[in-house]
Amino acid sequence: MSSQIKYILDEEKIPKYWYNIEADLKKNTPPPIDPATGAPMDPAKLEAIFSPGAIALEVSRERYIEIPEPVREIMRQWRPSPLYRARRLEKALKTPARIYYKYEGVSPSGSHKTNSALAQAFENKRCGTKKITTETGAGQWGSALAQACEIFGLECKVYMVRCSYDQKPYRKAMMELFGATTIPSPSPYTDAGRAVLARDPECRGSLGIAISEAVEDALKNPDTKYCLGSVLNHVLLHQTVIGQEAILQMEMAGDYPDIVIGACGGGSNFAGISFPFIGEMLRGGRKVDILGIEPAACPSLTRGKYTYDFGDVAKMTPMMKMYTLGSSFIPPAVHAGGLRYHGMAPQISNVMSQGLMRARTVQQLDVFRDAVIFARAEGITPAPESSHAISGAMDEARKCAETGESKAILFNLSGHGHLDMSAYLEYFAGKLKNYEYPEEEIAMALAGLPVCEAK
Amino acid sequence: MSSQIKYILDEEKIPKYWYNIEADLKKNTPPPIDPATGAPMDPAKLEAIFSPGAIALEVSRERYIEIPEPVREIMRQWRPSPLYRARRLEKALKTPARIYYKYEGVSPSGSHKTNSALAQAFENKRCGTKKITTETGAGQWGSALAQACEIFGLECKVYMVRCSYDQKPYRKAMMELFGATTIPSPSPYTDAGRAVLARDPECRGSLGIAISEAVEDALKNPDTKYCLGSVLNHVLLHQTVIGQEAILQMEMAGDYPDIVIGACGGGSNFAGISFPFIGEMLRGGRKVDILGIEPAACPSLTRGKYTYDFGDVAKMTPMMKMYTLGSSFIPPAVHAGGLRYHGMAPQISNVMSQGLMRARTVQQLDVFRDAVIFARAEGITPAPESSHAISGAMDEARKCAETGESKAILFNLSGHGHLDMSAYLEYFAGKLKNYEYPEEEIAMALAGLPVCEAK
Repeated sequence: MSSQIKYILDEEKIPKYWYNIEADLKKNTPPPIDPATGAPMDPAKLEAIFSPGAIALEVSRERYIEIPEPVREIMRQWRPSPLYRARRLEKALKTPARIYYKYEGVSPSGSHKTNSALAQAFENKRCGTKKITTETGAGQWGSALAQACEIFGLECKVYMVRCSYDQKPYRKAMMELFGATTIPSPSPYTDAGRAVLARDPECRGSLGIAISEAVEDALKNPDTKYCLGSVLNHVLLHQTVIGQEAILQMEMAGDYPDIVIGACGGGSNFAGISFPFIGEMLRGGRKVDILGIEPAACPSLTRGKYTYDFGDVAKMTPMMKMYTLGSSFIPPAVHAGGLRYHGMAPQISNVMSQGLMRARTVQQLDVFRDAVIFARAEGITPAPESSHAISGAMDEARKCAETGESKAILFNLSGHGHLDMSAYLEYFAGKLKNYEYPEEEIAMALAGLPVCEAK
Repeated sequence: MSSQIKYILDEEKIPKYWYNIEADLKKNTPPPIDPATGAPMDPAKLEAIFSPGAIALEVSRERYIEIPEPVREIMRQWRPSPLYRARRLEKALKTPARIYYKYEGVSPSGSHKTNSALAQAFENKRCGTKKITTETGAGQWGSALAQACEIFGLECKVYMVRCSYDQKPYRKAMMELFGATTIPSPSPYTDAGRAVLARDPECRGSLGIAISEAVEDALKNPDTKYCLGSVLNHVLLHQTVIGQEAILQMEMAGDYPDIVIGACGGGSNFAGISFPFIGEMLRGGRKVDILGIEPAACPSLTRGKYTYDFGDVAKMTPMMKMYTLGSSFIPPAVHAGGLRYHGMAPQISNVMSQGLMRARTVQQLDVFRDAVIFARAEGITPAPESSHAISGAMDEARKCAETGESKAILFNLSGHGHLDMSAYLEYFAGKLKNYEYPEEEIAMALAGLPVCEAK
């Protein structure tokens, strides 16, 4: 009877610094540009929507940036998060691979999102913000920000993608339990929402639309700022506590990963686990195979174009250079709501374009099949988003079973699925399906892309 | 900005022994009696439904009983569970009290129930059982047993109280995710279920009915045994890992509780936290105020009668001496489904009758009000059952705020409420209500009690 092995770090090992990959990249990530001028965005112009603290992190090239002590103190509730050796899963797969996973589902909101939510809420409190708006897909980011705002005494208003709002009433309940207001998006309360509803009153929404609404709300209201749960440099930076802890925990295990895997939506959990390992590589450390897993229903890294595009549907954000399916692309309503974003974080896109990582897609039915195998073996109920990483890791372990290779595979289990059980009910009832894009559909989405480069 | 303090024990501090309160009680707990003869039940007769391992524990008077290593190994996934000092809650209540809670929601099923499920599944595996039947109220026990059976390779069939089955589809999904079959109870598949349905086709069920169905199923099928998630001595024993860890963690905190609080349904989580402290007292240790909190909708300890009664509706179980509202009592469908049991564990009833503890009731609306305050302060979403302990602890802390006393209050937070969010949605929507029993209704329930003592 082999069981998991749990690697636990002392509280003092919670990272004191965030790790900034810009310090180690040979080619820095292209800056966002102002669509009005085509010139790099003046950071000061971002202050209308973001806290000065967030903006400073966004443009920093320092390798290590100190984590404010109040944020670190609150993280003590659940950090350092455990890292497990999945021996029961290895046995179920009859693989010689050594499978490790970092488990971020132990946070108050049930995912890695709390790592960034606390930091963003703290910076807003520090600069006098009273109210925060945001978007949420699956609801993990919204729950995380709701709780962080509650802790720091800020109001929180969450525009939740309608398809998730309908699929996941429990997430709405959790956001309200933590004191936030939730609004299904597209909503009739913003110009951006009204414009979408005028074209399609039945629109199920997307992260791109919800972002437009939340940004507009922040722009129109004084004392209100906007927070984004992924994509931006400072958000990815906040998540690097994950990979930094994992490096120490792999050391405890007397091992080092051959492959590091994360699910890719906007990119923050993937960056969180992988950037510290990429940093080690860039500074001369051991070569690691870095693998991003995205849903076939929203294949930005694998089928998108690396170009400047807007972060939202209404084209209110600066333009960012990223792998994108076009800011008007609305992915089908798959259950991994947190991965339904048309683009990929600029830093990850940069890393990808430099050949420092690879990516592949997985299909919804394979993801759920593997999530069930994982849950039964490891006793953890994974979120559909996180299950993309599980499925990717299991595929690598299956390859090892075929070749006889004993690779060390590390993946990030970014969150639990306790509030996503409706997805499992639909899966068990045979109601879920895969999604294959015809080439022409992707080509059409890409054809709508603005063509533009930084001047 | 004060935050929680987390007290974490090393893995080696997972208790190696269960603590058996019978060894320290001046008056031992009266044995179950055979309703056919009125004589104490012959343990051998219990083998039709329970594993020999469980029966041995049931009648043991040894103080410390070794935990089988395979069970201990699997518990390493989440044990020792954390103990928190609730400094943010203290601040929210402006209380001089020091509030501590042991958090059992970190287990695979999300509650303390896994502690006993693993031990019971292991003993059944050891004696050659192929299939296990059980009942579940809120679904926490069912999820726990489903996962434990999956680990040890046993089939699992769960009779789930219909009101919870309807209120909590996510719990059903989790049980199925862990490989179990779930059946709403009363069901048409057993004599016991059919009898209830004949009287009331719309019956919402109760733990007492579901127990009858699961026991009948086990009795009728070879290779099938029955497991109970609370009430019995061996189940309470399995839970004493909680209190044993808490004693060590209070030591780490340099403190000792003045009050120890747990929610009371069948009694297992309450016994888990309190029995090790009562044991210390009985062996000459410091006096602690032991407080059980039960729902006003099912007030067995506070309004029931201490007498021999059946454990189930169909009178299939042996008779146990316990505080009971009568085995035919069907509590209203409050959201704390796990507390809807007509009786109280015989050991707890014995402890109560000897004046070693006290009990009080709380009302549903107060419980949810306090759960929301707790969640916002501490960043944990509590189960409705566990929230009874929260509310009881908060009341004690509020008293301290009035008197200026600085008591140390320890309570058991037995599980998270991620799969109970529908209850919060109903609470926020103003749909929940309190339940006050007219004296005559309780009197009528008690009048139906069998009158009988062990010969």
